Amino acid sequence: MTALVFLDSEFPAGRVADATIPQLSVLDQGVTRGDGVFESALYTGSVVRKIDAHLARLRVSAATCDLVIPEEAVWRAAINTAIEAFDAVIPCDEAVVKLIATRGNEGNNSGTCWVTVSQAPALGRAQRESGIDVILLDRGYDSTVAERSPWLLMGAKTLSYAVNMAALRHAKKNGADDVIFISSDDIVLEGPTSTVLLAHRDGTAKRLITPTLETGILPGTTQGAIFEAAQAAGWELGYGPLTPAHLMDAEGVWLVSSVRLLTPVNSIDRTTINRDAQLHAELTAMVNAIG
Amino acid sequence: MTALVFLDSEFPAGRVADATIPQLSVLDQGVTRGDGVFESALYTGSVVRKIDAHLARLRVSAATCDLVIPEEAVWRAAINTAIEAFDAVIPCDEAVVKLIATRGNEGNNSGTCWVTVSQAPALGRAQRESGIDVILLDRGYDSTVAERSPWLLMGAKTLSYAVNMAALRHAKKNGADDVIFISSDDIVLEGPTSTVLLAHRDGTAKRLITPTLETGILPGTTQGAIFEAAQAAGWELGYGPLTPAHLMDAEGVWLVSSVRLLTPVNSIDRTTINRDAQLHAELTAMVNAIG
Repeated sequence: MTALVFLDSEFPAGRVADATIPQLSVLDQGVTRGDGVFESALYTGSVVRKIDAHLARLRVSAATCDLVIPEEAVWRAAINTAIEAFDAVIPCDEAVVKLIATRGNEGNNSGTCWVTVSQAPALGRAQRESGIDVILLDRGYDSTVAERSPWLLMGAKTLSYAVNMAALRHAKKNGADDVIFISSDDIVLEGPTSTVLLAHRDGTAKRLITPTLETGILPGTTQGAIFEAAQAAGWELGYGPLTPAHLMDAEGVWLVSSVRLLTPVNSIDRTTINRDAQLHAELTAMVNAIG
Repeated sequence: MTALVFLDSEFPAGRVADATIPQLSVLDQGVTRGDGVFESALYTGSVVRKIDAHLARLRVSAATCDLVIPEEAVWRAAINTAIEAFDAVIPCDEAVVKLIATRGNEGNNSGTCWVTVSQAPALGRAQRESGIDVILLDRGYDSTVAERSPWLLMGAKTLSYAVNMAALRHAKKNGADDVIFISSDDIVLEGPTSTVLLAHRDGTAKRLITPTLETGILPGTTQGAIFEAAQAAGWELGYGPLTPAHLMDAEGVWLVSSVRLLTPVNSIDRTTINRDAQLHAELTAMVNAIG
C-alpha cells in the first residue's frame, strides 16, 4: 500500500489521491525527460527522520535544476497528511517517505509535486545484518568535473537515475549486491543510492572518513548525521580524496543511506575486507539514534 | 492536442487514452528513476519518417537497459492508431511521434509503453531557417568511456535527460540556442538532442563528416539517412574523432535531429563560422527527401 498526497495550492494540507490508479500525465517532463528532483526519507517510530536535512537538500537539488518548488511548510503539511493516510491503513515499523518534484508538462509554468509513503523494502533490513558484496565501477567522470561543469547537475538528486539503476543491475549480474563508483582518475565517489564511509583505528583513536563533496557526489544526509554523532562521541572525522586502496586498508567500510541505514561491506571486487565488529556496533547505535 | 495510445496486450491495435487526464502511475520507474527509453520521430506528409530506424534504435536502447519491450509489429499498430486519432482532430503539417517504454512499477514484471502524437514545436521550424548560435560544453566523460563502461548506458536513448535539459538551459542563460558537447579530452560529441555534422569542400569534392560512434554518442537516425543520401549524390563520408578546431574550419556545421531536421550553426562560442549556402541547400534537399 502506498499513500499518495499531491502538493496542490487549492488544498493547504495536500490533496490525497489513490496511488493504485494513474495520477500523472504521460506528458510530464518528470517521465519524458527524467526532469525533476527527489528525496527518500525513513519513517519509523512515528518520526520522519532527518526531515530538515531532506527538505534542505531537495531545495538545493531544485535550485541546481532551476526548478521552483513549494515552500517547506507546504511539503511538511503534505508529508503529515500522507503519513496519517498511511498509518490509518497499514502501520508498520519502517516506511519510505518519498518527495518528488518534476518540471510538469512542457509549456506549463508549474511543476508537479507529490509525497508517497510506502512500506520499506525487506531487502535493505536484511542487508544491514548480513552485509553486502560490492564491486567498483567507473562513473566515467573525473573527480574535478563538478566544479567546472555545473550543467552536469553533480550533487543534485535528480530523477535521471537510469545509470544508477544500470550499475546496480550490473553488480547483480556479476554476483554482487551493490556498487561503489570510482572516478576516471581512480578516486572513490559514492554508491548509486548511498554514501561511502570508512573507519580506522589509530591506537585508541577512532577515525571516520567519507569522500569529499568536491568530487561531485551527493551530500549524504545520513553521513552528515552519523558524522555529527561520531564527533560528539569523540571520533575524529576525515574527508577524502580516497582511493580504492583506502577502502581495502580500512577497519570497516559501509554504505549508508536514509532507508537502508548503515550497511557493512563484506567484500570489494571479491576480496574480503576488514569488518571491525566493535566499530560497527558503535556506528549502528549512532544511526539508530538519529532523530 | 496530443493523441495517446498505450501498448496493451488486450488491445491488439493499442488502447486509445485521453492525454489531458492522468494516465500514468506515480510509482512508475519511468518517473521515479528516469528508467526507460524513448524515440521521437517526425510525422509529415502522411508518413512517419525513418520509422524502421527509430524502432531499431528503440530496441537497442531497451536491450542496453535490460528492458523487454513489445515486438515491432505491436509498436507499428499503436503508432497507426495514434496517428489516426491525431489526424481526426488536428491534422497539421508536422507532428512529433514519441515512443516511450518504461520499466513500469517496481516489482511488476512488465513495463509501461505508449505512443503520443503532438504538433511539432514552431521553434524548430524557425531555427531551420534562421540557424542557431551554439556553445561548447564539457560532457564530463572522456571519449573512450563507452567501450569500458557499459553500465553508463552511452549510446542508449534513455528517459534520464536531466543533464541534456540543463545544458540547454545553460546555453539559453548565456545567450545561445543550443549546445555541442565536448568530451573531457576535447573531442566533439553531440548536441543534447541532436547529432553534429560538418562539411568540407576539397576542390570539386564534397565531404560530410560526423563524430565516430566510438565516443559513446547516440547513433543519429537523421545523420544515417543523410549520409546515405549524400553518398548516393557522390559526397565523400567521414567519421571523427573531431576536435573543436574542425568545427571552426568547416564550410558548414549543422545539428540534425528527427524533428528539427537540418539546423545550420551560425556561431560557436560567439565566433561566427562558415555557412556555405550551396552545401546547405544540397543537404536540405536530401533531408526533405528522407522517407
